[in-house]
Amino acid sequence: MSRPSTPLLDRIRTPADMAELSDSDLRHLADELRAETISAVSETGGHLGAGLGVIELTVALHAIFDAPRDRLIWDVSHQAYPHKILTGRRDRIRTLRQEGGLSGFTKRAESVFDPFGAAHSSTSISAALGYAAARDLGGRGIDDAGIGDCIAVIGDGAMSAGMAYEAMNNAGHLDKRLIVILNDNEMSIAPPVGAMSSYLSRLYAGAPFQELKSAAKEAVNFLPGPFREGAKRAKDVLKHMAVGGTLFEELGFSYVGPIDGHDMEQLLAVLRTVKSRADGPVLIHAITKKGKGYAPAESAADRGHATTKFDAVTGEKSKAKSNAPSYTSVFAKALTGLAEEDKRICAVTAAMPDGTGLSGFLERFADRGFDVGIAEQHAVTFAAGLAAGGMRPFCALYSTFLQRGYDQVVHDVAIQRLPVRFAIDRAGLVGADGATHAGAFDVAYLSNLPGFVVMAAADEAELVRMVATAAAHDEGPIAFRFPRGEGVGVEMPADPQPLEIGKGRIVREGRGVALLSLGTRLQPALKAAEALAARGIEATVADARFAKPLDREMILGLARDHDALITIEEGAVGGFGSHVAQLLADEGAFDAGLKFRMMTLPDSFIDQASMEAMYRVAKLGAEDIEAKALEVLDVAAIERRA
Amino acid sequence: MSRPSTPLLDRIRTPADMAELSDSDLRHLADELRAETISAVSETGGHLGAGLGVIELTVALHAIFDAPRDRLIWDVSHQAYPHKILTGRRDRIRTLRQEGGLSGFTKRAESVFDPFGAAHSSTSISAALGYAAARDLGGRGIDDAGIGDCIAVIGDGAMSAGMAYEAMNNAGHLDKRLIVILNDNEMSIAPPVGAMSSYLSRLYAGAPFQELKSAAKEAVNFLPGPFREGAKRAKDVLKHMAVGGTLFEELGFSYVGPIDGHDMEQLLAVLRTVKSRADGPVLIHAITKKGKGYAPAESAADRGHATTKFDAVTGEKSKAKSNAPSYTSVFAKALTGLAEEDKRICAVTAAMPDGTGLSGFLERFADRGFDVGIAEQHAVTFAAGLAAGGMRPFCALYSTFLQRGYDQVVHDVAIQRLPVRFAIDRAGLVGADGATHAGAFDVAYLSNLPGFVVMAAADEAELVRMVATAAAHDEGPIAFRFPRGEGVGVEMPADPQPLEIGKGRIVREGRGVALLSLGTRLQPALKAAEALAARGIEATVADARFAKPLDREMILGLARDHDALITIEEGAVGGFGSHVAQLLADEGAFDAGLKFRMMTLPDSFIDQASMEAMYRVAKLGAEDIEAKALEVLDVAAIERRA
Repeated sequence: MSRPSTPLLDRIRTPADMAELSDSDLRHLADELRAETISAVSETGGHLGAGLGVIELTVALHAIFDAPRDRLIWDVSHQAYPHKILTGRRDRIRTLRQEGGLSGFTKRAESVFDPFGAAHSSTSISAALGYAAARDLGGRGIDDAGIGDCIAVIGDGAMSAGMAYEAMNNAGHLDKRLIVILNDNEMSIAPPVGAMSSYLSRLYAGAPFQELKSAAKEAVNFLPGPFREGAKRAKDVLKHMAVGGTLFEELGFSYVGPIDGHDMEQLLAVLRTVKSRADGPVLIHAITKKGKGYAPAESAADRGHATTKFDAVTGEKSKAKSNAPSYTSVFAKALTGLAEEDKRICAVTAAMPDGTGLSGFLERFADRGFDVGIAEQHAVTFAAGLAAGGMRPFCALYSTFLQRGYDQVVHDVAIQRLPVRFAIDRAGLVGADGATHAGAFDVAYLSNLPGFVVMAAADEAELVRMVATAAAHDEGPIAFRFPRGEGVGVEMPADPQPLEIGKGRIVREGRGVALLSLGTRLQPALKAAEALAARGIEATVADARFAKPLDREMILGLARDHDALITIEEGAVGGFGSHVAQLLADEGAFDAGLKFRMMTLPDSFIDQASMEAMYRVAKLGAEDIEAKALEVLDVAAIERRA
Repeated sequence: MSRPSTPLLDRIRTPADMAELSDSDLRHLADELRAETISAVSETGGHLGAGLGVIELTVALHAIFDAPRDRLIWDVSHQAYPHKILTGRRDRIRTLRQEGGLSGFTKRAESVFDPFGAAHSSTSISAALGYAAARDLGGRGIDDAGIGDCIAVIGDGAMSAGMAYEAMNNAGHLDKRLIVILNDNEMSIAPPVGAMSSYLSRLYAGAPFQELKSAAKEAVNFLPGPFREGAKRAKDVLKHMAVGGTLFEELGFSYVGPIDGHDMEQLLAVLRTVKSRADGPVLIHAITKKGKGYAPAESAADRGHATTKFDAVTGEKSKAKSNAPSYTSVFAKALTGLAEEDKRICAVTAAMPDGTGLSGFLERFADRGFDVGIAEQHAVTFAAGLAAGGMRPFCALYSTFLQRGYDQVVHDVAIQRLPVRFAIDRAGLVGADGATHAGAFDVAYLSNLPGFVVMAAADEAELVRMVATAAAHDEGPIAFRFPRGEGVGVEMPADPQPLEIGKGRIVREGRGVALLSLGTRLQPALKAAEALAARGIEATVADARFAKPLDREMILGLARDHDALITIEEGAVGGFGSHVAQLLADEGAFDAGLKFRMMTLPDSFIDQASMEAMYRVAKLGAEDIEAKALEVLDVAAIERRA
C-alpha cells in the first residue's frame, strides 16, 4: 500500500519539534497529518471522522501549548489518532486497536502525552479542572514535571451529558484558569438532539462567523478587550459582546467564538491570545466538520464515525463476511415487530440510535421512540416516568454506558418496582474497543437489586424470546443482556413466546459434572461437553437464562445429582455465580462436599484484542471450561486409580 | 402536647375539598398548614425547613391543579410533609419516619397523590417529562385515571446536578407541555455552590421582584403577552423580556419569574395563568425562604433542614444521649489531622459538608477542600484529576449517593488506577431515612473492580487506621466504608498506623465454627460468640478488614481449621461473601465439605424503622448470627446424639 508523502510530518518526533515551524508550515503539516491519519485508519479500521475534524486543532494546540507540561485532555478521545501521531506514536499508529498495539483511545499507560484517558463521553472538563486545582496547589503529577495549562477538548454531543454541565458549573465557581474547547461539529455519533444543540446552532447562525473566517488579523480584533489589555476580567467584558454565548457566560466562562476550526491562522491567533491572557475559565467555540478533507467520510451519513479497513483512494470498505444476524439487529427487529401490535411499547436510546439498532424503530414510531442525547441518567428516569404513566418502555443501552444511570436504576426503577425494560447491548467482552467498553459488571450490579428480573440470552433465538418476555412483564423491572457481534446461526422461533420467569433449561443431560451457563458462553460450554464426552465424561449442560430470580429447583437438582457444578458467565464476580453460591450455601449443598467452581471474567481490565484472544486471556473458552471440569473432577487421579 | 387550632385545615380530607375555599381562605389555610407541620415535626423529628418553605406553594398547587390526575412530583421530597397533610395523610402525619408509619419522602406505595417517589435529588424533571410523554401517547398510569398536567418542583440546589440539566435539555427538545417550578431558597442542605447558584442570584437581584410582590393583579400584568393572548409561542416572546431568565429560555423553556413564593395571591395568579395558557415547557422561578414562618428554623444555620423532636414553642430540641463519637466525626477529625501534616491531602464533598463532617476541613483548608455541589459524577472525576495531578484526594460521599458516580469510579478511577480515596459514609442500614438512603451495594459494586482496595471499619479505632491507610496508599484507588451513627466506644489509637493491605485479624480464637465479619457487624458477631460459648461452642471470630484484596491466607486457614465458616456483612449479595465464596471454590475448600454460609442484607428494600428493628428484619443481629451458627453446626443433631 502506498503511503502519503509527509516531509514535514517526518521531522516531528514530539511536539517540541514543531517549534521551528512557521505558521504556514503548520498549515502544511496539518495537510500531511490528515493524509497520514486516513492512510493509517485505512489499514486498521477505527474511528476516522472525528479525528479528521480536529486535524487543524490538534496541530494548533501542540504548536501553541507545551504538552506534556500543559495537560491536553481529549473528551471521549476517539478523535485523538492525529494527536497520537504527533506525540511520539506515529511508528505504532498502524497497530491501532489491535492486540498489543495502540489503544483506540487516549491512555495514561500509553504515553505521558495522554494525561487522562477516556472512551466514555463528557469527562474531560472534570478531569481538566481537577488538574487545574492540583496545579494551583503545587501538584506535579506522576511525571513530576509540574502542571501548566489544563485544556479539555469536548464535542457538542458530549455537552448534552449532565456531567459536563456539573463540571462547567463547578469551574465557573472555582474560577481557575482552565481552557475548554467546544468542538462543535453538530454531530457526535448521530446528529445531536436536545435544546443545547439548537442553542449552539443559533449561536453559530447569529455570529459574525464569515468575517472571522476572512483573516486571522480580524479574528484577533474580535477578541475582547481584556485579552489584549488584561485590565479587566475577561468575562465581565465578554458578557456584553454582541456575539452571544450568554449561556456559557452565565456559567462563569469567558466565551470566545464561534471560530472556524479548520482555519489554521484563526486557530493560532485565538489560542495564542487565550494562552497569554486567560485568567479564569475560557470556552473557545470552534466550528468543525466531522470527516473534513476526506470526501468519502464527508459524504457518509455518520461522517465516517467508525469504519472497517478501507481503500484510502476510493474509500471502499473491506466487508467482513457475515454468517448470522447481529444480536443488535435481532433485538431491534423483534422490538419493532412487537411495537406494531402493542402501542404501549416505547424505545429510549441515549444518542445511540444506530449502535442500539433502534434507528428503524425511531423512524417507524417517531412518537414512541426517544433519543434523549448522551444522557443515561435522564434516559433511565425518563423511562421510569413512561412506565409510571402506563407505557412499556425499553431502555436500550450498552452495558458499559448503563453504568452512568446506575443510581437511577436503583432509586427510580428498582425501589419503585417500575416495569422499565433494559435492553443491555455489548454485554461481556467487546474486542477492539477494549476495557473501557467491556460490559463486565451489569449482571452483578443489577442482580442484587430487589425485585429485578435479569436475563442473559444464550443465542439469538433466546434473545427474541427474552424481548417477548420483557414486553409482557408488567410486574417490575426486567433486563436482558446480549453481546456484541453476530449470533450463532440458530433457527429463529416463528412465534416467540414469553419465557416463564425464573426457569432455566437443561440443554444436555449427563452426570458427574454439570456446566451451568448464563448467556452466550453456552456454545463453548457445549463444545467443552463434547470434548469431555470424547474422554468418556458425559457432562450435563444447563442454560440458566435467569440470573435473577434463579431457577432454584433446577440448580439444586443439578447440585444434588452431580459431584461437581461449574457456573460460567461473561461477567465479573458478584453476578450469576455469586447468587448461585449463596443459594447453594443457604440450602446446605456445600455441606455434603459439592465440588463447586465459578468461572467469571478475571480480576483485570482486558486490553483490546480479537474476541478469541480476549476469551483466552479471560479463560472462558471451550478448552478452559473443559480444563476446569477435568481439574474439579480430578481426572488425573481418577485415571491413575483406573 | 397542645395542638394548633386549624378550623380550615380540619375540613380538608383531599385536595378536592379545597374547591370551595376563596383565595383569602387559602391564605389562612396556609397559615394553619404551617402550624400543623411544625406541630407534627416537633413530635416526630425530620425535615422541617424545606417543608415550611413551600407551604404556600403546596396550597396553591393543590388549589389550582387537580391531583392525582395532574402529576405533582416533588424533587427529593423531604419538603412534602405539607403535601402529605393535604392529601389524605394528616391522620398519620405524626408517624413520620417511624416503623410502619409514613415515609419521610414521597412514595408511590403510600398514596396515589405521590406519582413518583424520591429521596435522591434532581430526578423530578426526568420523571415529569416521562409522564408528559406517556400522557401524549394516551398513557393512563396504574391508577387508570388518565394523566393531566405534569409538574416538577425542584430546588435551586438540585439544579447543580447534571441529571436536571439532561432533563431540561431533553424537555426543551421534546417541547411537550410541562411545568417546572424552581423553588429557589438559595439553600439546599448547605448554601449552594456553583455558577448556576450565582446566576440565579443575579436573576433575583435584577428582577422587578418588589413590584411583583405588591399585588397579584400586577403579577398577572407582568406575565408575558402569550399567556393572555395565546397567539404566539410563549417562549418566543419571553426571550425578549427584560426580566432575564435567558439561560432557561435558551434551553427551550418559557421563563416566568422570579415571583414571591410566599405571596399566595401572586402564586395563584401565576399558576392559573400558566395552567390555562402553557403550550410547552414552562419554568416558574419562585423565591422562597427555607424555614419560613418559624423563627427557630429561620435563624438556624441550616434553616431547620433536619431536626430531632423539639418543643414547638421554644424550638428547643430534645437531645439524644451520646455515648461515643459518631463515625462521621471520627473520620473528619482523622482526615483533618492528617491534612495538617500532608499538604497533598484534599477533600471533596458533593453539597454535604455537614453530613460528611467536612465543614471543619473546608474552613481550615479552604484551598484544599472542595464542595462541588450536588454533582457526584463530577466529584469523582474531579478527584481523579486531582489524583492525576499528584494530590491525595479524599472523595467523601454517602454510600447511596456514590451510586451517582459509579461509571466515573469504573471509567476514570479504576481503569486508570488513580489513587482516589473514597470515604463512604452511611454504609449499611440508616434507620429513619429508609430504603432510599441505605448503603447496601457499595461493597458489591466496588469489590469487583480490578485494582481497587475496599475496606470496612469494624469500629471507630479501625476507622482512623483506615483513614491513615488510605492516605498512604498511592498505588491505586482505595475505599473505606463506615456506618451512620455512633461508634462502639473503643479506645482510640494514639498514633494510628496504616494497615497492611489485604490483612485481616483474628479477634477471638475458637474451633468448629468461624464467624468472618466485614465491618461493624463485628460486635454482634462477638456477642453471638459469647452466647455460643455459654453453650460450650467456642467460635472463632475474625475481622476481615478488607473485602478486596482478601486475606487469602487467613480465610483459607479458617476454612481448613473449621467445620463451618460464616461470612457476615451489612451489604447486599455480590460483595464480601461472594468474593470469599469464589476464593473457597477456586481453592477447592468446598470439595471437602466445608459448611459455608453467607449472611448479607436480604433481597428486599427495608422501610424506615429503628436500627434495631431493621437489623431484625435483615436477620443480621447477634441472635441471628448465633442461630445461623447453631443451624450450620446442626447442634440439635449433635445434642440428640450426645
